[in-house]
Amino acid sequence: MTTEREKMTAGEAFNQFDHELINRRILVRKMLQKINNTPDNEERNAMIKGLFAETGDEFFMETDLQFDYGFNVHIGNNFFGNYHLTLLDSCPIRFGKNCYIGPNCSLYTNIHPLNAQERINDVELGAPITIGDNAWFGGGVTILPGVTLGNNVVVGAGSVVTKSFGDDVVIAGNPAQVIKQIDNSNLQEK
Amino acid sequence: MTTEREKMTAGEAFNQFDHELINRRILVRKMLQKINNTPDNEERNAMIKGLFAETGDEFFMETDLQFDYGFNVHIGNNFFGNYHLTLLDSCPIRFGKNCYIGPNCSLYTNIHPLNAQERINDVELGAPITIGDNAWFGGGVTILPGVTLGNNVVVGAGSVVTKSFGDDVVIAGNPAQVIKQIDNSNLQEK
Amino acid sequence: MTTEREKMTAGEAFNQFDHELINRRILVRKMLQKINNTPDNEERNAMIKGLFAETGDEFFMETDLQFDYGFNVHIGNNFFGNYHLTLLDSCPIRFGKNCYIGPNCSLYTNIHPLNAQERINDVELGAPITIGDNAWFGGGVTILPGVTLGNNVVVGAGSVVTKSFGDDVVIAGNPAQVIKQIDNSNLQEK
Repeated sequence: MTTEREKMTAGEAFNQFDHELINRRILVRKMLQKINNTPDNEERNAMIKGLFAETGDEFFMETDLQFDYGFNVHIGNNFFGNYHLTLLDSCPIRFGKNCYIGPNCSLYTNIHPLNAQERINDVELGAPITIGDNAWFGGGVTILPGVTLGNNVVVGAGSVVTKSFGDDVVIAGNPAQVIKQIDNSNLQEK
Repeated sequence: MTTEREKMTAGEAFNQFDHELINRRILVRKMLQKINNTPDNEERNAMIKGLFAETGDEFFMETDLQFDYGFNVHIGNNFFGNYHLTLLDSCPIRFGKNCYIGPNCSLYTNIHPLNAQERINDVELGAPITIGDNAWFGGGVTILPGVTLGNNVVVGAGSVVTKSFGDDVVIAGNPAQVIKQIDNSNLQEK
Repeated sequence: MTTEREKMTAGEAFNQFDHELINRRILVRKMLQKINNTPDNEERNAMIKGLFAETGDEFFMETDLQFDYGFNVHIGNNFFGNYHLTLLDSCPIRFGKNCYIGPNCSLYTNIHPLNAQERINDVELGAPITIGDNAWFGGGVTILPGVTLGNNVVVGAGSVVTKSFGDDVVIAGNPAQVIKQIDNSNLQEK
């Protein structure tokens, strides 16, 4: 039998008023209240790790974090997330290793239908977001549902990323476009 | 006699150091401290309803909410506001029914003069914002003073809406432009 | 002898794990927890003033403020900063007098290298930001490292400012461009 959580994670239409999902959102909201009022880095990071699906040993997250579930957030080793990261994780959000995320960034996997009647009927869908290794997001970056970024991608501050991009590029703008290729031939570990 | 609150709400020059307005801003700031530290949905929503001019029975607002006065915020039934909604409501902000607002959205009715001397003289103006029924705002949307959106409008994540738009469109970008028409002929209740 | 703090402030490569810098960031984070939970304006403003390099007597900052160090923030007299201002101040951030900053604005002086291996090696650089007198930033403005704005500049809501601009202009967009000249010939005090 497929649970609503499984449907949601797969990006299929699901019932957002399912008890398992409601209870998880309530738990996360209570924990975020505590997390965002904990200035001690080790204590705060440990609480966050306990709610995410996967993190590395080297993991640092600043305060003002927001997310819905946590069980769909997969983070590689050596992660740095600055102030006020928003993760709408109805579908999986995956970061590779060595990702540095600037303040006020947002990754949204949730999709509502464009048709008004379907929205009123509470149809909710989603699509996963996958970020490769060694990403750097400047501040205020927005990533839309379904986006995949390759390895070594730099996203300019204030960019809105509406489609996928490959390795070794700087992207910027609204909507984000490639503005530069990066030479990463000196990369030691791949 | 016209009060400063009435002048402000009408979009006319007003004295922001008026005692009624200062006291209201202090009250709201204290209440927001409490609201944003209340993880229980029913308690939090009830406190917010008490400060807004008008809401429907079905009303849900996430935490990290910010607004100046509340008495100029009018919200139709079946409203969902996600994390960190900012409402600068010196003039009226009106939402129709069935509006779903993504995280980190901002609606600003305040206007300062472009002329530096007038700004230094603390001249402050404003223009109302009106959003029709069945709107969906993606995350990080900014709405400027004086904007009116029709019914069934979808605003793409990260958009900056600088002018008004009619019914049944998807708008996106900075500044936002129409990127798609939506067929809402199946809408049951208008 | 040059300290890591001096190197950082000068925009040179520095060791972010230096004890003086770590201790300062911990102190600031603890103070921000307190600052952002203080609805009383006078108390809150006094605590912020004590952490910034320089402010005028007339100084007002709303809640939800974030910054890294404070010792690199220089603010002229008659400053108003609205909700959720983010200042990444590894290098100096300077505002002239009479600056009014809308909600959700961000000024970032930090620079990471575009080359992935250098980022993994924790090379961190920076460039100062300088804002002239009488600026008005609409909500959600992002200012990038190294930007200088002249006097009497108005920045449209949601703009991403990637390069410097002179006096008496309205700039807007992502990236921000000049959209209007402003006549400030009536300015009384220069």
